[in-house]
Amino acid sequence: MNTADTIVAPASAVSGAVAVIRLSGAEALDIARRIWRGRRDPGAPENIRKMLLGKVGDAPVLAVYMKAPHSYTGDDVVELQCHGGAAAAHSVLAAALDAGCRMAEPGEFTFRAFVNGKLDLLQAEAVADVVRSGSDAALKLAERQLAGRLSARLGQLYDLINRFRSECEARLDFPDEELDFAPGVPDALTEAAAVIGQLLAALPAGAALRDGVNVVLAGRPNSGKSSLLNLLSGRDRAIVSDIPGTTRDTVECDAVIRGIPVHLTDTAGLRDSTDAVEKLGVERSRRSIAAAQIVLWLLDLTSTEPEQEVAELLRSAPPGSIAVWNKVDLAADRTPPDLPERFPVVSISARTGENLEALYDAVMKQLFAAARPELPEIAPNARAGRELEVARAALEVAEKEYRRGNYELAAEESARAARAVGVIVGRHADPDLLDEVFKNFCIGK
Amino acid sequence: MNTADTIVAPASAVSGAVAVIRLSGAEALDIARRIWRGRRDPGAPENIRKMLLGKVGDAPVLAVYMKAPHSYTGDDVVELQCHGGAAAAHSVLAAALDAGCRMAEPGEFTFRAFVNGKLDLLQAEAVADVVRSGSDAALKLAERQLAGRLSARLGQLYDLINRFRSECEARLDFPDEELDFAPGVPDALTEAAAVIGQLLAALPAGAALRDGVNVVLAGRPNSGKSSLLNLLSGRDRAIVSDIPGTTRDTVECDAVIRGIPVHLTDTAGLRDSTDAVEKLGVERSRRSIAAAQIVLWLLDLTSTEPEQEVAELLRSAPPGSIAVWNKVDLAADRTPPDLPERFPVVSISARTGENLEALYDAVMKQLFAAARPELPEIAPNARAGRELEVARAALEVAEKEYRRGNYELAAEESARAARAVGVIVGRHADPDLLDEVFKNFCIGK
Repeated sequence: MNTADTIVAPASAVSGAVAVIRLSGAEALDIARRIWRGRRDPGAPENIRKMLLGKVGDAPVLAVYMKAPHSYTGDDVVELQCHGGAAAAHSVLAAALDAGCRMAEPGEFTFRAFVNGKLDLLQAEAVADVVRSGSDAALKLAERQLAGRLSARLGQLYDLINRFRSECEARLDFPDEELDFAPGVPDALTEAAAVIGQLLAALPAGAALRDGVNVVLAGRPNSGKSSLLNLLSGRDRAIVSDIPGTTRDTVECDAVIRGIPVHLTDTAGLRDSTDAVEKLGVERSRRSIAAAQIVLWLLDLTSTEPEQEVAELLRSAPPGSIAVWNKVDLAADRTPPDLPERFPVVSISARTGENLEALYDAVMKQLFAAARPELPEIAPNARAGRELEVARAALEVAEKEYRRGNYELAAEESARAARAVGVIVGRHADPDLLDEVFKNFCIGK
Repeated sequence: MNTADTIVAPASAVSGAVAVIRLSGAEALDIARRIWRGRRDPGAPENIRKMLLGKVGDAPVLAVYMKAPHSYTGDDVVELQCHGGAAAAHSVLAAALDAGCRMAEPGEFTFRAFVNGKLDLLQAEAVADVVRSGSDAALKLAERQLAGRLSARLGQLYDLINRFRSECEARLDFPDEELDFAPGVPDALTEAAAVIGQLLAALPAGAALRDGVNVVLAGRPNSGKSSLLNLLSGRDRAIVSDIPGTTRDTVECDAVIRGIPVHLTDTAGLRDSTDAVEKLGVERSRRSIAAAQIVLWLLDLTSTEPEQEVAELLRSAPPGSIAVWNKVDLAADRTPPDLPERFPVVSISARTGENLEALYDAVMKQLFAAARPELPEIAPNARAGRELEVARAALEVAEKEYRRGNYELAAEESARAARAVGVIVGRHADPDLLDEVFKNFCIGK
């Protein structure tokens, strides 16, 4: 991505009442002046950062100029706020493109913020996390990372590792007998290993918060899958339903369980069928089940043949599915048949919501081995996790070599560990890494 | 809608990279100060209209204060620009609601702009038209209306009618023999009638531009309906495909034909079937055909039984459908069978695009009785059309009465006509009318 060009893209989604078109680059102000007419000049010193009303063509457009480096990207930025809708936003976008802008690549605004030192790489990734966060807890995690909390922790880790390396190098320069070193492993190394351990322990929760968890509802027809889907999704659906721009599908929807974003998939009832269309549905169900992190396997407690329900579970449910006896409100006195130990069991009513908390406990236990897990304040993402594993392995070798008195090797390994930690915040960023990070962004970010 | 409250809503769609949350009302600044922390005060005189960086909770948020009456609504307005995504936008929205805002009703920002005299009623309607405009031509029409072009024309009309009314009243006050009036109908009345005639003539084009035209593709299976859908939609789809927030369905999609937004619906092939699912599809097709403004009835020119193709057309196509012989590239030498005169006929190739312009000509002729219609600069919407019909009828009566020397009745009828024209721009707006106008808006507009 060429950082000399002046780039443009819709920064907001265009479908709302207003749309924001963002220009960033050395020519942003000149290009804006060519397409936007108004009584006052957005580039005049007294107008910097001021939203001025004018026109692009016939359309009323607010223009605001944010002078480098005091902008999101650190470049000169002009934002044009116009009426929303694809045609209206496109006409402003087209004017900017005609006047010399290049269309921004996905993530290119944030990439420039990184290049210009406004954000480190973890903070840049947090921007994408904020936008797609699927729960308040996920949002908070992303906001803390954007504010630099995870970066600060990694900065401490980096310093600890370098402190250890200095000790190795000092031992090289001055043989042991001349120094007053303690004989054991230096504290800095122990502390660094502890920090890495804490961070890696937060990996699963971080992944669940960032990416959400795929939960599939399965079971025989009429076991209550759709009722449970509605019950689970209804709880948090109200939060976003009155915000324009959020749409949902009928058989897949999002929910939040104990702060964790959950993608719910309802499946066609599993049964043998000769109908071609129904067969396709069952086939799709089996694929969903195979890809799920959690399968809630619904069993009908009111069934006259509970053994058949159980037989289907044993035939089709992957181990670790949660067996959910439904309709407990209609059959409170019924004792369900025993199940193999590999299936956690809960009894609920998808109609009344009875025992929903027990179901949540079971889901959390499957995910985090704890019914009510504490969600971490900061958590590495998968990329950071990989580098932390590299650092951990290098420090383990460094410790071994240090104990053997091989200070040169210990210093080398700790340098490798420091480098891995540096990569996380983008201190040693190669093009492939930047590609990997920014390809996941949306246009306009 | 209570105009004393301070209201809030996302002004942009929340799904983009950034989201704009708009507060409007007397307390907008106070509420913003309660939830937004930054180094500088957005309400300080030197900071008015300036985008200042600060935080709402942990989230970085730009705040800008636009002091009444220099804002979109004419109220005090604060806009908070935050990172996008439902969770991020919702957290800022929730903070504003907690701090004393009320959630805005659909269209309530624009309603306030109307109440505060920033826009008349036609301009307010143009705001909604801009957002949903489905082609550049539709956008231009809406932008001209927003800029007041249609309102200005109606202002002239209002003045003409009142000039005629003055003449009627003058004749009442001073009997004929005392005045030096010309014996014929006053010019003002003739001009007013001409203006109304011009405006009403633009009604169909205005409706087509604003609401789009429903075009249904029908015909027997394999006649090429899907190819034609792709061909028609592909032309303009590229314009919006790289803008986030625009999604399309596979069997319904939007296109633009000669500047007119077109909603295309592909239908299941019509044939007798015993398959239950296919029957449902055919039933749905018949309903689509009944609701269409234009039916493009595809006929297969390569068919070995062209009579069967024609028989299906005669049995199922409503009169005024366009008969489209497809696959002319494969059967250029074939002469299609004659069709009844009520069906316009074109031969095309949906594969190569051959003769597409002839098809467009036929569509335009069906809609506007002209193959290449000139789209109007300004056009009334349906509501304005109804009032203009009232005005026209009243002026016709007024003219008759004037010719008979019944100047009092003529004055009354012209007052009725003036009132109808006044209603269009909101000069005499009753609550029901305002409800009707603003209920069509989206939230945040």
